[in-house]
Amino acid sequence: MTDTTRALARYVLASNFDATPEAVRHEAVRSLINWTGCAIAGANHATVETAMAALVPFSGPAQAQIVGRGERLDILNATLINGMASAVLDFDSTQFKHTNIHPSGPVLPAVLALSELRPTTGAEALHAFLLGVEIACRLANVLFGRQNPGWHVTGAVGAIGAAAAAGRLLGLDEDKMIAAFGIAATQPGGLREMYGTMCKSFTPGRAAANGLLAALLAEKGFDSAARPIEGEMGLAKVLAGATELSGLTEGLGEEFEISFNIYKPFACAIVLHPIADGCIGLKNEHGLKARDIDKVALRVNPNVLKLAGKVEPRTGLEGKFSFTHATALAIVKGAGGEGEFGDELLADPEVAALRRRVSATPDNAIRKDEAHIAITLTDGRELTRHVTHALGSLENPMSDADIAAKFNSLAAGVLAPERIDGLLKMCWDVAEIEDAGAIARATAP
Amino acid sequence: MTDTTRALARYVLASNFDATPEAVRHEAVRSLINWTGCAIAGANHATVETAMAALVPFSGPAQAQIVGRGERLDILNATLINGMASAVLDFDSTQFKHTNIHPSGPVLPAVLALSELRPTTGAEALHAFLLGVEIACRLANVLFGRQNPGWHVTGAVGAIGAAAAAGRLLGLDEDKMIAAFGIAATQPGGLREMYGTMCKSFTPGRAAANGLLAALLAEKGFDSAARPIEGEMGLAKVLAGATELSGLTEGLGEEFEISFNIYKPFACAIVLHPIADGCIGLKNEHGLKARDIDKVALRVNPNVLKLAGKVEPRTGLEGKFSFTHATALAIVKGAGGEGEFGDELLADPEVAALRRRVSATPDNAIRKDEAHIAITLTDGRELTRHVTHALGSLENPMSDADIAAKFNSLAAGVLAPERIDGLLKMCWDVAEIEDAGAIARATAP
Repeated sequence: MTDTTRALARYVLASNFDATPEAVRHEAVRSLINWTGCAIAGANHATVETAMAALVPFSGPAQAQIVGRGERLDILNATLINGMASAVLDFDSTQFKHTNIHPSGPVLPAVLALSELRPTTGAEALHAFLLGVEIACRLANVLFGRQNPGWHVTGAVGAIGAAAAAGRLLGLDEDKMIAAFGIAATQPGGLREMYGTMCKSFTPGRAAANGLLAALLAEKGFDSAARPIEGEMGLAKVLAGATELSGLTEGLGEEFEISFNIYKPFACAIVLHPIADGCIGLKNEHGLKARDIDKVALRVNPNVLKLAGKVEPRTGLEGKFSFTHATALAIVKGAGGEGEFGDELLADPEVAALRRRVSATPDNAIRKDEAHIAITLTDGRELTRHVTHALGSLENPMSDADIAAKFNSLAAGVLAPERIDGLLKMCWDVAEIEDAGAIARATAP
Repeated sequence: MTDTTRALARYVLASNFDATPEAVRHEAVRSLINWTGCAIAGANHATVETAMAALVPFSGPAQAQIVGRGERLDILNATLINGMASAVLDFDSTQFKHTNIHPSGPVLPAVLALSELRPTTGAEALHAFLLGVEIACRLANVLFGRQNPGWHVTGAVGAIGAAAAAGRLLGLDEDKMIAAFGIAATQPGGLREMYGTMCKSFTPGRAAANGLLAALLAEKGFDSAARPIEGEMGLAKVLAGATELSGLTEGLGEEFEISFNIYKPFACAIVLHPIADGCIGLKNEHGLKARDIDKVALRVNPNVLKLAGKVEPRTGLEGKFSFTHATALAIVKGAGGEGEFGDELLADPEVAALRRRVSATPDNAIRKDEAHIAITLTDGRELTRHVTHALGSLENPMSDADIAAKFNSLAAGVLAPERIDGLLKMCWDVAEIEDAGAIARATAP
């Protein structure tokens, strides 16, 4: 029997940042920026406010910054809160390779908090982050790529990614790193039943804090099983009935999971991205106005109707899962950011009227990042667009400029403009900075 | 579809302590005393020392006592540590009705810690405790009574018991209580792979803290799914594939799970209890000496050899899972407490020599709490004993005096004798005391 956990621990300890391909490191930076923007914008969400109200009375020393807010809490509670904040807008980086894990949420908060407590360079932090993402994504792919009884995958494996990252920063030896993996593995969390509630965001935060705790316990000598992932009653079997685990270790150090991270340009369900992308393109190309439009006919992947089939959304949140609303916003506003998907534009007469002229036909031949859009104008003309790969997909990724623009828009309501510029620059230069702890501190308004 | 979670929440809120049968309340007191003794004796175990070293730097205000120690931590960390301490000796109360859940460990620490923070009478604390046990045990029975892929059941459901108990003490309304159940349900933990490591004790502590956190979050308005246990992607389906859940609510308030709690008189595996009980009985009856014994032949339930089949244990811990060692200790020392099962007596020449003269034959017809013992003396005589129900089984429970003696022996190394007497009296009188927070404080050495 292969000691899979040991192999993963060895990889995490042996990995060399300088030998990591430049493109991989750059993708980690893009993920960092995207995550930080999401956490700042989510920092004052009701979910975070409620959790802060509950947790502050029990929190320890002011060791780590709550991103986008004034408070500082102990590193475990800061990690929990920051992981939640980054998830509340459903806008964080995603993998669509095998599962839809959001790997940054459970890993980065632990890295940033620990970097405030112990001297950590930007390069060390970035390296730990991409190693944690590697472990979490491989576990997601292999354990849940084929079967999933209902686990919120980010929570089921995220703590192990956080433990790997934190363990690397703490300088654990191999046996202690295995222990950290084990302590994290015995704390899986996240049921899909929670989707649509505050508990959905709680899950990545809790995973991050669980993984950090695991590494801190292991550092002091707390022990765990030798084969926590692959053992007879280990994580893979108990959560997913998975026994074929070779994918966990194959190609380690050659292919990097963070390369498959994608970023959402639009603040709505990922399945609506081809529609938003195409409609914004048509509006810009033809100077479209809602009053000139007779009807919009969409041909889409069947998941659009399954996952975002609401035709008359009642809240901004429901609007993110409404193909009619996403279409109307794209055409009326030429955009689909967090600002557009609030409650305010839901009742806008132009948007509301246009929603009712949108229809969608499911077609199994259409991929998830593809859509056909046909707009019939009141003068009888028809405008069409075929989006082969939506902006934000792996084949048509957001550019660095797009990532920066998204960051600016997310931070705009929270930080002063000059603070935003400075923070963004610090993030782009993270691999060169002396003190990674400065990143979280720079998010304080 | 029945709203199972709502029914459980309603029960927890509507339950009336004064209407609870006296025998049930008394069993809760016995469980409290047994748990407190275990936690005091476990307080200085390496597992607890290691966890304290890791956690104290991140801990919040000194709100709650670490049982059996000098420190006070915030209520969440105190709950985590106390739950661990009570489990390290594997000596806490158990159910053997359907699973072997240890229901006190994840529930009582939350109750005791919360009682130090908010005014709580002894009756309120005892009531909350037995309600938490009720919920945790019902979940264990129904979800894992028939199938279990490898969950440490105490951790998989314990947090929900803790949330129920803490939620009752916090005075949550029905919807908030459901939220507390949900936040706890999305944090299951504990893989059986961890048995034999520090992570085994970590699990009940983490469950207790998770449940307390769930109730504290719910109190502030943190929400969760409406049907976290019974939903399509809820706890029952995802962890255990369980769909027949009527047992969760049938007979609520009529039959009480705490009535099925049993207490181990001997500090070894529960399957060895019939042997220890019978051998001590024979020694006392006949004034047996090891040197007079030619051989000891046991006929036992097959689980004895499966779970405690070590013939030559190398450590005191292994000795707890050795039928030869438990037999030898019972005959040589006439006892099988935590003191006997240390490393010291392992190499005792008389004990070691007698171990080698012990054999066991498995027999499917013998129940788990039953054993046949035949001792052949060097003079040719044979002494036999048939233990039908070992001391500590549901049919032959430890008396109140036995429970008190066990408590005294567990506390002896930690607290001064007069402190032990006072604490024990406070525990027997718990239903009458004004301030339940005094219990944990009285365990400080």
